[in-house]
Order: sequence, then structure tokens, then C-alpha cells
Amino acid sequence: MSTAADTTGATLPEHVNPAAVQEVLDGQWEHVRNGARVQLADTKWAPVYGEDIETARARITELARELAKTGQTALGFPVEHGGGGDLGASIEMVAFIDLSLMVKVGVQWGLFGGAVQALGTERHHAELIPKIISMELPGCFAMTETGHGSDVQQLRTTCTYDPDTETFDLHTPHEAARKDYIGNAARDGRMAVVFAQLITQRTPRGVHASAVPIRGEDGAALPGVTIIDDGYKEGLLGVDNGRLSFDHVRVPLGALLDRYGQVAADGTYSSPIESETGRFFTMLGTLVRGRVSVGGAAGSATKVALNIAVRYGETRRQFSAPGDEREVVLLDYLAHQRKLLPALATSYALHFAQEELTVMMHEVLGSSTVDTERQRELESRAAGMKAANTWHANRTIALCREACGGAGYLAENQLPLLKSDIDVFTTFEGDNTVLMQLVAKGLLTGFQDDFGDLSGWGKVQFAADRVVGTVLERTAARSLIQRLIEAVPSNTEETFIRDRGWQLATLEDREEHVLEGVVNRLRHAADEDTDAFEVFNDAQDHVLRTAQVHVERYVLESFVAAIDRCTDPDASALLNRLCDLYALHTIEQDKGWFLEHGRLTPTRSKAVTATVNELCKELRPYARTLVDAFAIPDEWLNCAILDEEPARQDAMWQEDSRLRKGARPGAEDTASEVQVAPGQ
Amino acid sequence: MSTAADTTGATLPEHVNPAAVQEVLDGQWEHVRNGARVQLADTKWAPVYGEDIETARARITELARELAKTGQTALGFPVEHGGGGDLGASIEMVAFIDLSLMVKVGVQWGLFGGAVQALGTERHHAELIPKIISMELPGCFAMTETGHGSDVQQLRTTCTYDPDTETFDLHTPHEAARKDYIGNAARDGRMAVVFAQLITQRTPRGVHASAVPIRGEDGAALPGVTIIDDGYKEGLLGVDNGRLSFDHVRVPLGALLDRYGQVAADGTYSSPIESETGRFFTMLGTLVRGRVSVGGAAGSATKVALNIAVRYGETRRQFSAPGDEREVVLLDYLAHQRKLLPALATSYALHFAQEELTVMMHEVLGSSTVDTERQRELESRAAGMKAANTWHANRTIALCREACGGAGYLAENQLPLLKSDIDVFTTFEGDNTVLMQLVAKGLLTGFQDDFGDLSGWGKVQFAADRVVGTVLERTAARSLIQRLIEAVPSNTEETFIRDRGWQLATLEDREEHVLEGVVNRLRHAADEDTDAFEVFNDAQDHVLRTAQVHVERYVLESFVAAIDRCTDPDASALLNRLCDLYALHTIEQDKGWFLEHGRLTPTRSKAVTATVNELCKELRPYARTLVDAFAIPDEWLNCAILDEEPARQDAMWQEDSRLRKGARPGAEDTASEVQVAPGQ
Repeated sequence: MSTAADTTGATLPEHVNPAAVQEVLDGQWEHVRNGARVQLADTKWAPVYGEDIETARARITELARELAKTGQTALGFPVEHGGGGDLGASIEMVAFIDLSLMVKVGVQWGLFGGAVQALGTERHHAELIPKIISMELPGCFAMTETGHGSDVQQLRTTCTYDPDTETFDLHTPHEAARKDYIGNAARDGRMAVVFAQLITQRTPRGVHASAVPIRGEDGAALPGVTIIDDGYKEGLLGVDNGRLSFDHVRVPLGALLDRYGQVAADGTYSSPIESETGRFFTMLGTLVRGRVSVGGAAGSATKVALNIAVRYGETRRQFSAPGDEREVVLLDYLAHQRKLLPALATSYALHFAQEELTVMMHEVLGSSTVDTERQRELESRAAGMKAANTWHANRTIALCREACGGAGYLAENQLPLLKSDIDVFTTFEGDNTVLMQLVAKGLLTGFQDDFGDLSGWGKVQFAADRVVGTVLERTAARSLIQRLIEAVPSNTEETFIRDRGWQLATLEDREEHVLEGVVNRLRHAADEDTDAFEVFNDAQDHVLRTAQVHVERYVLESFVAAIDRCTDPDASALLNRLCDLYALHTIEQDKGWFLEHGRLTPTRSKAVTATVNELCKELRPYARTLVDAFAIPDEWLNCAILDEEPARQDAMWQEDSRLRKGARPGAEDTASEVQVAPGQ
Repeated sequence: MSTAADTTGATLPEHVNPAAVQEVLDGQWEHVRNGARVQLADTKWAPVYGEDIETARARITELARELAKTGQTALGFPVEHGGGGDLGASIEMVAFIDLSLMVKVGVQWGLFGGAVQALGTERHHAELIPKIISMELPGCFAMTETGHGSDVQQLRTTCTYDPDTETFDLHTPHEAARKDYIGNAARDGRMAVVFAQLITQRTPRGVHASAVPIRGEDGAALPGVTIIDDGYKEGLLGVDNGRLSFDHVRVPLGALLDRYGQVAADGTYSSPIESETGRFFTMLGTLVRGRVSVGGAAGSATKVALNIAVRYGETRRQFSAPGDEREVVLLDYLAHQRKLLPALATSYALHFAQEELTVMMHEVLGSSTVDTERQRELESRAAGMKAANTWHANRTIALCREACGGAGYLAENQLPLLKSDIDVFTTFEGDNTVLMQLVAKGLLTGFQDDFGDLSGWGKVQFAADRVVGTVLERTAARSLIQRLIEAVPSNTEETFIRDRGWQLATLEDREEHVLEGVVNRLRHAADEDTDAFEVFNDAQDHVLRTAQVHVERYVLESFVAAIDRCTDPDASALLNRLCDLYALHTIEQDKGWFLEHGRLTPTRSKAVTATVNELCKELRPYARTLVDAFAIPDEWLNCAILDEEPARQDAMWQEDSRLRKGARPGAEDTASEVQVAPGQ
């Protein structure tokens, strides 16, 4: 029997080797993770707080240049242009260290370099990629405008071709059309990949990107280019975000990144993709790596916060239990376990789903043939995982801060920086709510429609007959999961709550039911010939819920698949227990729905809550093992309490013991003068 | 019939005057609120971002001194020492402006001044209060230690009386005993009210406070006093938090704040309160205003964030509806309404409960007779409202940031400062989880036990027979609420979901049931003679839940009571609708419990969700009115998008219209050259 089904509630082994758990976490890109751990094991990379904006930017730029020298940032580029040719090698390891550095790196190599690679053709690659890899050419990804962040198909910057001069006229018609929040723009960028409405022969061709120089060698903005600093942000102080406006800037024909749309010298436009919308979303689709990286990075930051909070919670004491001399360790309180352990289980679950997503991306982007449906599934998965990871990160880092009390609020304990930096991850690379709507749309259309066109709800053709079957395909370890589900007795009321098959079946059934409900509701409303916007808007919460339950289902399946890959029996037992916690906590969070729809009886619903409490108690002794398995090098932690709290608790305990033996408080001698010492 | 019962779902008046709603919000301290609005209506008070720590501290100190000159900070002190004699006049208005300033003010006048006032006697008052009011004597409230923040009865600093010199020996025995996170300590404080274990005649007397000079006129630390800067924090940069250690510092006998414990020259100790624990919690109880202020301040900060997010959501557009030329305003999306409107309703509900708490405090602290049970109820209410307000503030400000997208992350739009500053409000003046445990303990013991002694769970005597009756007393407008509840038909399945009586009865019934459940569970477990800590710990989630449902019940009742005070029929109708949203959203959030316990049928549970959606739609046109009623002066808002976004949207719309008429994009002329303009 597979290890992934060992959910009998047996006693866990007393000791589980963190290295065995780490091996499962490190997975297919173990070499990349270990490479970063070894190569970057130096405190010079660790986060710094209290800098002013200029100091922070200068330091992060310098670190990015140093990182380029290590080769870490080249891994994802093709070998022929000096890269490592490993598409799945993401930059999430840098996010363990410093999110400003991660974003700076993400802008330069992921977004700017990635766009040149994906949207450009051979002459762009040959000329630009080597300079991008070395950071000789720092660049921007200028897509978002002040007026359009989510609906980027409606960008207002124009790029009009003039056959007489064989140049484009790049122009910002009004303030809402300026490029905004653009990383690398305020200080370092020399070039920008600028997305604009392409117009040739008086005809709009939709959004296209060009590689446009914005600063000269002297660092000054080029003529016609206006650069405004976005200034202070909540966090990410080391990233120089800015605004770019173009006043009829002349751009040579060759600057157009023309893989998906070519302009001849006379202005004739051609493209392998006929539909303007289809073309745009194909272009966007090639940039999926950015979204994948942001989700992975948020996962790394969450692990740092959990590592700090769990280790502090294992050391810090407050309040005595009746009859005990020494105070209780925070993590021994159920309320504290309830805060941290389900979050830890969710981090594991999301990690494995993120790993599965990376494998999928590696396959799809690396494939020589184009499979449109598979590409859309990848985009959907990337969108869902980006939203799930970044929302979880924000919730969990805030929780960890609170779990560390006043110490958690001091910059010297790293959590404040993490909290301020991570906030915007729910917004950039796609607003999470909009992304979840994208996921929902994929589910509702069976990935048949122009995928990203969120405004086109009215055009959706419901392919409900095949919807449910489609969305349940393609998870890793599908056959194992199928077997587990089929082994569940038909009278599930009697099934053991820790039965993995029952948990899987429960989330699968919920997804099918919610999706069918939305399809029926929308179809019914559409029959009544009401206003299309109103029909969709009235159901928007229901629509978004389909995405939510879909993501939770495949995240659980990814956890199960990961345990199936685990070869160490002790690690496997521990991960199984943790997977129970993820599954049952997920069910508990939504118990209202399960009860509403008769999927749980009241008795069973209460049993779910009781089992979550039991699991917290069972897993509490392994909390440290589970964060140790993240294998975060000490050099990357800049957290005073982790060093200081154990010594403080020891010193206090020694003094308390001395007092109990009758010493006078506050005295250095041992004269027995006080009748009852404080603390008793 | 009372206006508070008008829940028929009738159409709301087209226009509701924000001033009429404001009148209900301003309530009993309208004069204080309007005084602050008028007196402080100057941009010099507005928050500033991007400062370094020294600049921020200097500016906030200077503003605090200026505020002292306005008389705002003296309002709560007795008339005979130069104060305004208005105990309920809190500092929450300052929290509309700047949370650093609010905390600085709270430390100087609320905590430091408040402790001298409440724990000192006439000679302390006469000597210190006038200098505190004027800020001639900046001071600290030195209670929390590095090792003890929640369990302050276990502080380790000692204060040992020496009759030979008639002085105390104030001493920090180890690092965990140093005072930490102390506001005003790192830069400005000249004196500190230091809490320490008092020892006289070789006998510990429990925690007492003394007024101890810490800096000389030159600003240098006095001999034996070590001051360490806590440095950068996540936010509240203008507040100089620091650490204080004492190396056998000699403190004169007269420095002891001796209202509740006196030491004679020969070291004889006397106190009007026999029990050491009782004495300590009586002292703490007098400091309840700090906790009340923190809750109120969090409410103000939340209103600022909601004001920004609602106004932005009313202007900002993204994605077109099918057939519409102009894009949809964000707040027209159900998902956006679902984010902001229940949060807005909750802010109103908490505001009214906070007002009720302030009235209660005004009465209890202003009373010449001591009513211990009423005092404990006040402390419980203050604890619950502090936790509810600060958690709501953190959730809502984060939500508002996300609802403003990338713009919300820029410091120029104020939300980042609010978010970073508000975080620690869940921790200081009592960790929220610990406070909720305090509330729960009050419920379980009927406020009979030594109230704050959280470690003494084992000693709790369950007075279950009288528990439920007790906790449901003493809400304002109780008789109205009773009438509404009694009017609910016995077959509640048929009752209109918007029936206020049904909503009230539902939350009251939940509270009774949860509380009875915990009492039975603990009593049953106690019968089995198991380990006392384990019994309580296993039920800790259940115990904390009693506090949660208790707070939600009286918050709803406060909302109903406030509507009953409203004299404007239009405002009353609007507030009634908003109250529906608060009540039903609260029920929806916990629908799992209601279904588990047969309080909602599945059909009715779904109807609750549908009604919340309807209410969002009905209230959406009044969102602006509801935030305008907060009456936040423009001078206090430092938010670029509120000024800029409307103009940007107008400019874009004009350009779009011009293009639709056939103009060439990017051209200043009007030549009709383009066949289809972008945006169509």
C-alpha cells in the first residue's frame, strides 16, 4: 500500500530526521535549492532594516549585480545565450533572503529578460540577452499603467507606425496612460519593454511590446521620456519603482518584439494568430513564469516567518500551569498551536502544489509542440497558486508577527520587513481577485474560450457537460488518488475522518457541486434574458468560490502526491499527519457549506473540529522538525530573538531557582531572608 | 414603534444627509469630536512618510507639545490639577490624524499621567500632574518587561525597601527583567512609572509602581539607569520605544505611588486590599482607560482607511460591461462590495459599542462608590472591545490597501502608514488572545473571581447557574431589545431574516449555548480529576469562542441602541439597513455553528448569504454617505489618489470619447483615420 494512504492515526515515530523531510520539499530542483544555500551562505545577503530609500536601492542594486556574477540569475535562460537552460529553476530561493532583492531580480531577469526572450526573436535575443544576464543592461517591464493594472488589454499608450521614417511613434496620451509602479524605472533602468496599442496602416493591432531605451549612458532620461519616482512604498524599499511617460518618442522598427506580430517596412502587419484578443493572451501566456515565481517567493517568505514564530513559540514562556514552577511554553497552548500549525500545514501543502506547477511549467514551456489547452491549464494553475500563496503569506506572516508579541514588531526580528514587503504580492503580477476570476472562467468554459478576456463574460459559451470532467484531470498521482477515493465506503458517515480517500472525495465532490451550481445558476439567469453584466455580477461571489474550492482540491492532491514520492517511512508518517491537518482544517474552514449541502452531519462536523485539535496536539512535538526541514541557512536570518530568547529564559530560570532556595531578590549574596519569592 | 425595529426591507430614501448620520456617530462626546475637528484643522498635523527615525521622533514630540497647548490632552484630568474633568473625553480623535502622535499622546497623558493620577495620592498629583499636562515632564509607563508582557503579575524587577536609608532599591536582576517597548523611553522621558515587585521587611508585597526619575535635565540617563533604544519598528516611527534597566537605583520612599499600598518609614506595609492578587488587579483596573483608548483609536484609523478605499472604489474603473462604452466602477462589483461594505457595517457597529463602553467607563470611574462587579464588567468590556476593534482594524486596513491595488501600496496614499502603525495595536495594552481569555473568564465565573489572574484557571469556581443571566445584563436599550426578541414568532424558521428581533435572539441564543457548552465540558472534565492545565488547554478554543460570541452579541445590541437614539428618519432607515448587514454578515461568518446546532436550516442558511448580497447592493449607493458621516477633515487626509484619480478618469474618458468620434490616437488633430479605436 502506498505511504500516502497511511492515515490510521498510529503513534508517530519519536524522532523524524528533518533532512528526510527536506528531501521531499526540495524535490526536483534540489540542486538549485542547495546551490543557492551553499553559494549564498553569507550574511551580506541578509535583509537590512532602517535604511533610507536611496541607501536601500543602492545596496539592492549592488547585490543584484553580485547575484548575477554567481550565475544564479542565468539558470532559466537558454544555453545558447549564456543561460543555464533550466526553465523550472526559479528565483524563489532569493525570497528566503530578502524580498526587495527577489523583486529586483524578478524584474531584471524574470520580467524584462523574460519578455525579451519570450516575445522577441533571434536578433533581440542575440543582442540583448547576454547583456541582460550580466546586468550590463538593466531594464524594466513597462506594462501596467496608472489607469490600467488588471485590464491590461485596455492599455492607453499608443505605438503608431510611420512608414516614411520606418519608426514607431510611442506616446502617452494622458496621465492615466503613463506606465506606473514599474520596477527598475526610478533609478537603474536603461531600457524598458513597453507594452502599447500598436497601430499600423491606420488600424489598431492590439497590445504589443517594444524594447525601448529610456536612459542614456549618463543615467539621464532620454529626450521625450519622463521618469517620475514612485517614492516610498509600504515595503520593498530596495526596488526603484517609477512612472514612465512618452511624448511622441521615435522608436526604430526593429525594436518591436515581433515573435507574435510583425510589421513590414511599409507598415503591413502580419501575425500567426488571427484574433487580436487571442494574440494578446498568447503573448501574456508566455510570461507565466513571473506569476509562478511570485507565488513561489511568497511561499519562501512565509516559511521564514513560520520558522521564526515556531522557534520563538518553543522557547518563550508565559503564565504558569497550576502546580508547575516553570511557566508554560507558548506553543504548548492550544490557541497558539491553532494559530501556527494549520498555517504550517498549509505552507507544506502549497509548497507541494507549487512544485507540481513548476514541473508543469517546465514541461509546457519546454515543449516543442503547442498544446493550447495545456497552456491554459498552466495559466490557470499559475493564477490560482499565485493568489493562494500570496494570500496565505499575508495572513500567515501577520499571524506570526502577532504570535511573537511586541518582539515581533521590532525591526531587529525580521517579521516587520517581511510583512511590509509581502503585502503587494497580492496585487502585482495580477490582482488576486482578478486572478481567481480567471481561474473560475477556465473552469466554466472548460478552457475553451479566449482565456484571459475577463471582460467578455457575456460571450461565455457554457460547456457544462464536459466541464467537471475536464477540471478534475491532470493532477500528479491521479491514479493513486483515484484508488484512495474508490476505497471509501459508500456510507461515508461511518468513515474514519482521517481517511485520506474520504478527505479527497469530500473536496472533489465540493468542487463538482459548486461548479455545477454556478453553471446552472448562470444558465438559468441567462435564459431570462437579463443584463449580462448583472447576471454575472450577482453571482460573482459564487463564481469566485468555484476557483477557491478548485485550488484547495488540487493543493490537497499535490500533498498526497508528494507523500507518495517520499521514501523515508518516518518522514512519510509525519507528512501524512500534517496532510490530515491541512485537509481537515480546510474542511473545517468551510463547514458551513458542507452542512448546508448535507455533506457533513452536525455530529461529523463537530468531529472534524475535535480532530483538528487532536492533530495540533499530535504534531506539536514535530513543529521544530517541520520548520528545520525548510533548511534556511542561519546567514539569511536576521532575527535577534532567535539568538537571545533562549539565553534570557535560562538566566531567568536560574534566578528563579536561586530565589526558591531562599536567596534575597536583587542581592548578589545568598542570605536567606525572603519568606516567599515572587513567582510562587 | 421604535425606529430600531424598522427592518421591513422597504426602499431607502434617495438621499440621506451625512450630517444626520454623523450626529448619531458623534454621540455624547460630540463637543470633544467637533472641538478636535475645528481646533486641529491644519495640515501640519497630517501624517508624514519617508522620514528617518530621528526626524519622525522629533516631529512627533514637537506636535505632542503643540497639542498640549491646545488643551486637548488635559480634558481627562481633574479640574483641580488643571484638567478638563471629562473622563470620557478620549484621545481617539488624534488617531484620525496620525497613530504615532496618538500613541505618543497616549503614553504621556493616558498611561504615564493616568498612572500617576490613579495610583498616586494627593502629593503626587499636586507635584506631577500639572507638569505632565503641560509636557514639562515627559514620562514613561514602565510595566512590560522583555520576559513578561502578558503575565505582568510575574514581573521580575524588584523594589526592596531599606528602612535605614528610607529608600527603595530598584533593581533589574537579569535581561528578561528589563523594561521593554517602553514609549517615551528612548529619547524624551525624564521620569518613569516603574512597576516592580515590592519587598518590605523581607516580605514580597506584589507589584507596585513608583515614579522614578530616569534622565537629568541634560537628557542623559541618571546613574544606575541604562536606556537602550528599541530602534526601528514596523511602524509608529515617531514613538521612541526603549528598554530601561536599573542597577540598584535608590528611590526615595515618597516615590511610591501609594494609593493601594503604603510603606511606613520603618518598612511596615499596609493596604486597603488584603489579597496580593486582588490588589494588583485593582491597580490594573484603574488603568482601564488606556485599553479603552486603544480600541477607540483603532476604530478611527479603520475609518480613515475605509474612507479612502470607498472613495477610490467609487471613482476607479476597470473592465467594461458588455455593451457599455465606459468601464465599470470598482464598487459596482459584488466582489468589491463584499470586501468593503460588511467591513463598513462592522466599523459602525464597533463604533456604537465603543461609545457605550466609554459611557460605562465615564460612570464607573466617575462614581464615588466602588462597585466591584461593575468594575470587572467594565474591564471585560474594555478587553473585548480592544481586541475586537484592533483585529477588525488590522483586517480592514489590509483589505482597503488591497482594494486600492498598486496605488494602495504607495506611501503617498496613506494606507501603508496606517497598516504598519496599526499592527501592534493587537499586542500592546494586552495581547488580544489573552484579553479574550480574560473576557471568557469573566463569563465563566460570573465576574466573581479575582478577575485578571489568568494563570489561576485551576481555582475557578463555576457559578454556572447564574452565569448566563449575568452576562446578558446591562446593555443599553435592554428593554427595547427584550421587546424585539419577544416579538419573534416561536417558529423562527418562518421569520423574515431581516427581523431585528430574530437577529438579536439568534446571537443571544448562540452566546448562551456556547457558554453552557463550555461550562458543562469543563465541569465534566474536572470531575474526572485530570490535570487542571490540560483540561483548560484542551478546551481553549472553545473558551475563547465564548468571548467572541459574547462580544458579537453586545456589539449588535449597541448598534440597535444607537439607532434607537437617532431622531432623523432617513438616517435611521439607512442605519437600520447597515445594522442588517452587520447582523447577517456576523451570522453568515459563523453559519457552520448555526447549522451544526440546528439553529439554521440549510435553506435558511443559504438565504442569509443571499440577503447579505442583497444588502450589499442596496447599501452600495450610500457607501459615500456612510464614510462622509465620519467627518474626517480634509487637512488630516494625506492621500494623493483621492485628489488625482477623478481628474485622471475624466481626462481618459474625454480622450476615449474623442477617439470614438474617429480621432487618430496619440494625435492632437482630429483627422478621422482610425477604423476602430482601442477601448471598443
